[in-house]
Amino acid sequence: MREKFMAAMREKKSQLCVGLDPSPETGGPDDLLDFCSDIVEKTSDFCFCYKPNTQYVLPMGFSEIKALNDLIHRRGCLSISDHKLSDIGSTNRAALFWLSSMGFDALTYSPFPGNIRETIDVAQRYGLGIITLTLMSNPEADYFMKGVVQGISGYEFTANQVAASNGLGAVVGATCEVEDIKKIHAILTKQLILAPGVGAQGGGLDIVRIFKERTMVNVSRDIITHENPAERAHDYQALINNVIKEM
Amino acid sequence: MREKFMAAMREKKSQLCVGLDPSPETGGPDDLLDFCSDIVEKTSDFCFCYKPNTQYVLPMGFSEIKALNDLIHRRGCLSISDHKLSDIGSTNRAALFWLSSMGFDALTYSPFPGNIRETIDVAQRYGLGIITLTLMSNPEADYFMKGVVQGISGYEFTANQVAASNGLGAVVGATCEVEDIKKIHAILTKQLILAPGVGAQGGGLDIVRIFKERTMVNVSRDIITHENPAERAHDYQALINNVIKEM
Repeated sequence: MREKFMAAMREKKSQLCVGLDPSPETGGPDDLLDFCSDIVEKTSDFCFCYKPNTQYVLPMGFSEIKALNDLIHRRGCLSISDHKLSDIGSTNRAALFWLSSMGFDALTYSPFPGNIRETIDVAQRYGLGIITLTLMSNPEADYFMKGVVQGISGYEFTANQVAASNGLGAVVGATCEVEDIKKIHAILTKQLILAPGVGAQGGGLDIVRIFKERTMVNVSRDIITHENPAERAHDYQALINNVIKEM
Repeated sequence: MREKFMAAMREKKSQLCVGLDPSPETGGPDDLLDFCSDIVEKTSDFCFCYKPNTQYVLPMGFSEIKALNDLIHRRGCLSISDHKLSDIGSTNRAALFWLSSMGFDALTYSPFPGNIRETIDVAQRYGLGIITLTLMSNPEADYFMKGVVQGISGYEFTANQVAASNGLGAVVGATCEVEDIKKIHAILTKQLILAPGVGAQGGGLDIVRIFKERTMVNVSRDIITHENPAERAHDYQALINNVIKEM
């Protein structure tokens, strides 16, 4: 699973993931597939991956999501469902079954209810990678993610579990403090890092300097609401590649 | 919002919420609406509320979910999206907009990323109640929910925030330890309690003895996979009402 993602990044010469977060002002429930497809058609030369956020594409049914993922794959890219799955047992299994049937390659998982290892194991059977929410950068995320779990900080606890379960990756906000990102780096020696928050949310590329080729940089609004999404995606691709080259 | 739920319970003489969790073995993506509608038609005399879990109804698009909620309302019941929303800011606003447009009355929220008060406030503008995940009973839920947040246990921290933000309710597993449930009871003096885990998952009705008329008892599999869902829902309605009467 990890190799599939690394290969796509190498092939597309890009570590950019474009977040498909169409605002409800984009149009009605029936306009979302067109909006997302248009972005994919314009930007797929410059990124290796798309990340539809479930909350933004909530009105889309099975066949629409499937059609979007088929287009993404035809363009040589991968698709991560930003789903923040937060359930347990048979409920998670149902979600994994449907997300796999819809054509996703991976999904984000919230460790709040536990069961990281179980979820990673079941997901693998469905051909899905699990990217576990580890550290977000909004101030109130600190309550649980920097709370104390089994004697260590919540985010270190999560990172330990992801490493021990051989999970595909972890979500770490690009706007998190460098000191915290380095602690996660010491634990996750093989995992991919999905880093949201670059661009409109103010995050820089320090995280790329730390996780290098393992960083999947997510940019959403700053590309999808730009008057020229292709140009903007191209800019980000070059920006990230330059950070890597200069090291 | 609270009064709307209390009124529905009084009117239907039932504190039973039926969880609409159709297994993927139920059929293809296009069979879910029929399955759920059939359950509603058979059981709506015996419950006051339905709770479609997003993971189980993932393939259903906007118009199908809307049709299901319209049916639920025509039957005099309310609808809670078991969504475990886990995002922040504009992403949460998108989810709240769509869930409201789809006709839900309330949704479940995961406090993992924080922002309980903000979410409750925004939801109110959309006419949606927020029911916050407070304590689940699977063993690994203890990591975060019984971890230390701001000097107290995670679940007490969550309950404090729900009370301070005047949230509609909290999710507390029926299979949780009575001692923990009583601690939550001391904090949440007005909120509704959504109690999953009764029936197939082994939970009893101790939680009803503690939260009395404020308990919304969720039963899923034990009703929806039963050969006679109406009879089974009727049994649960009577069981819960007897617990209240005997006090």
